[in-house]
Amino acid sequence: MLRPISDRSGEGAREAAGSGLRDGASAARGVCGGLPRKAAGARAPLLQGFLLWRMGPRARRVAAAVRAGLGCRRGGGVDRAGVGAEGGDGPPAESAPGRGRRRRKGRAGAAFRVLHGAAGGGGISCVLQNGEIFEKAGVNVSVVFGHLSEEAVQQMRSRGKTLKTKDGKLPFCAMGVSSVIHPKNPYVPTIHFNYRYFEIEEADGTKLWWFGGGTDLTPTYLNEEDAVHFHKTLKEACDQHNPELYPKFKKWCDDYFYIKHRGERRGIGGIFFDDLDWPSKEEAFQFVQSCAKAIVPCYVPIVKKHCHDPFTPEEKLWQQIRRGRYVEFNLVYDRGTKFGLATPGSRIESILMSLPLTARWEYMHSPPENSREAKILEVLRQPKDWVH
Amino acid sequence: MLRPISDRSGEGAREAAGSGLRDGASAARGVCGGLPRKAAGARAPLLQGFLLWRMGPRARRVAAAVRAGLGCRRGGGVDRAGVGAEGGDGPPAESAPGRGRRRRKGRAGAAFRVLHGAAGGGGISCVLQNGEIFEKAGVNVSVVFGHLSEEAVQQMRSRGKTLKTKDGKLPFCAMGVSSVIHPKNPYVPTIHFNYRYFEIEEADGTKLWWFGGGTDLTPTYLNEEDAVHFHKTLKEACDQHNPELYPKFKKWCDDYFYIKHRGERRGIGGIFFDDLDWPSKEEAFQFVQSCAKAIVPCYVPIVKKHCHDPFTPEEKLWQQIRRGRYVEFNLVYDRGTKFGLATPGSRIESILMSLPLTARWEYMHSPPENSREAKILEVLRQPKDWVH
Repeated sequence: MLRPISDRSGEGAREAAGSGLRDGASAARGVCGGLPRKAAGARAPLLQGFLLWRMGPRARRVAAAVRAGLGCRRGGGVDRAGVGAEGGDGPPAESAPGRGRRRRKGRAGAAFRVLHGAAGGGGISCVLQNGEIFEKAGVNVSVVFGHLSEEAVQQMRSRGKTLKTKDGKLPFCAMGVSSVIHPKNPYVPTIHFNYRYFEIEEADGTKLWWFGGGTDLTPTYLNEEDAVHFHKTLKEACDQHNPELYPKFKKWCDDYFYIKHRGERRGIGGIFFDDLDWPSKEEAFQFVQSCAKAIVPCYVPIVKKHCHDPFTPEEKLWQQIRRGRYVEFNLVYDRGTKFGLATPGSRIESILMSLPLTARWEYMHSPPENSREAKILEVLRQPKDWVH
Repeated sequence: MLRPISDRSGEGAREAAGSGLRDGASAARGVCGGLPRKAAGARAPLLQGFLLWRMGPRARRVAAAVRAGLGCRRGGGVDRAGVGAEGGDGPPAESAPGRGRRRRKGRAGAAFRVLHGAAGGGGISCVLQNGEIFEKAGVNVSVVFGHLSEEAVQQMRSRGKTLKTKDGKLPFCAMGVSSVIHPKNPYVPTIHFNYRYFEIEEADGTKLWWFGGGTDLTPTYLNEEDAVHFHKTLKEACDQHNPELYPKFKKWCDDYFYIKHRGERRGIGGIFFDDLDWPSKEEAFQFVQSCAKAIVPCYVPIVKKHCHDPFTPEEKLWQQIRRGRYVEFNLVYDRGTKFGLATPGSRIESILMSLPLTARWEYMHSPPENSREAKILEVLRQPKDWVH
């Protein structure tokens, strides 16, 4: 059961407070009882508050950046949509009645904020489309719980996890914050980040937990100074905890975001990790927080530097072709997307929020030798060490 | 090893005639020796000629329609590109030097024709982009052979085939003609067809063979008259052989082109079949030929009827959203695409030729109730019987 909310509507806010999310929170406690002690207080109103409370400032700053993209202040000229909301197990978005959205300056700028909750979890999605700076940008905070499908268990087994199911069932609880921002200007790169916590209860009652996540950058054109800034900021965040983390997670990122059939990476990487269950839950959580804190200083200076760069239709076209590769990676290889599509009752609009507004596939497109298009391809084919 | 060809260039033609394709043809004979007797003569110059010879007239008529889309006669004003060609096991298209293409009237109309051959097979791709009628249209004739990857064998096992491999290896030979045509006008539907022959040699020397294929239509807006015409033409082709075929293959088509995570089909269907190894090789081949002959009468009248229909930017936008769903199906579910991506040395540009030139993903897009957009969605969610 889902409820529409709006930033300032008293009715919407009351609806949200009394929605299925609260039921979701209490239902989830059985599985996700082992969160780090410091986070326990945040569970009181909504279990989903956990990540909003601990990582929320990041998510809110990204939301602020999204607002900045619209050229307006918080609560100012943002076109808050009269959106309906939809739960994980509801019908596809198009079928729900009573949904619409207002337009701001014709086709420019539509922001959606949706609270969605159901028996299997809930969360908040905030998406902007056709902004002045961002073509499409979304933040998604969610908690899901239930039983993993056989397909999802299989995917985890293929990662080397030995999981003891009972009659093929495996109760799980997962929560995370994720975001993808596709800017309009081809000189502003796309950023993606996702930080998540996962818990599984095996047949014998053993609880397994781990963190996963990462932040990575996908430029249309290579700017070496920006690449160094991005990686250096992430390295500094990692180094606070252990100097071995950045090199390991940088390589993992290059390996993970590999579009095998193209022989190229999706972007210039960043950091990526999964199955992080050491040295302790509290320390792993602190590391994840450091990564989350690095997102804004990683990215916002690059956005500010380039968002007014002039560009040609040919440069926009190359951006659209790269967006096509982004779609290829996400739909063919991305584990998060595949897990989402394989999880019954998952919310498709949130899972596919990461796809760009528009993309392009040209047959045998081939940039001229020594062009700037060829230069970024080189780096995508042969990842570089940006900081030492 | 690949060779560039052009329609009339003597040098290109000589190159093609003396290219790796001939080697491919002789190498393939060992595995694909069991083709229908009537086709044997066609193998002499090029094994790949088999389907060009038997189904080639269809492919050539589609190519003619593609030319018509450019508003020019055969060999007339078509902008034949100075394309390079690329083999299945070569590097991605962008890396090959010396490739370019000329533009006709700015961005309008670029046609590519590529002969590609390598140790693992070869074929011909003919692609048009930015035509007056067709936004992107391609025909692909190919023969591939070699050893199936473990992943590909796994996919066939999951279809119920029990295959005896030797040290995990399974020699195979596959040949087929496929085409996807994405028109510009949202009132002209996308068509896809693919007809193929597959042969496998098991560890004990047993040879398995089967045909597969189908033709299906993906309209942006529903036109019931066109839907009936399309299905009726396919039914008549099937009924020549057995009245049970159309209902069976129509349902198979609806089931196959199902975008599970959206709860909707890719289009309004048509026919689809696989593993067709009865009643005899010759009869199965005759049935496939009837299907192939039905393609032009199925589709061309619909193109002619609507290609000059006026349309609004909003209607074009809805087409782009539907193209996004097309991409989702092809990358997430389509067995042909998954088989191609899982086959080492396959030619990515030919496999992904089916993707539209442009596509769009809007967050929570929802057409108004009772709109024409909602009407096509109804049919995609609940397939109809168009002929009885």
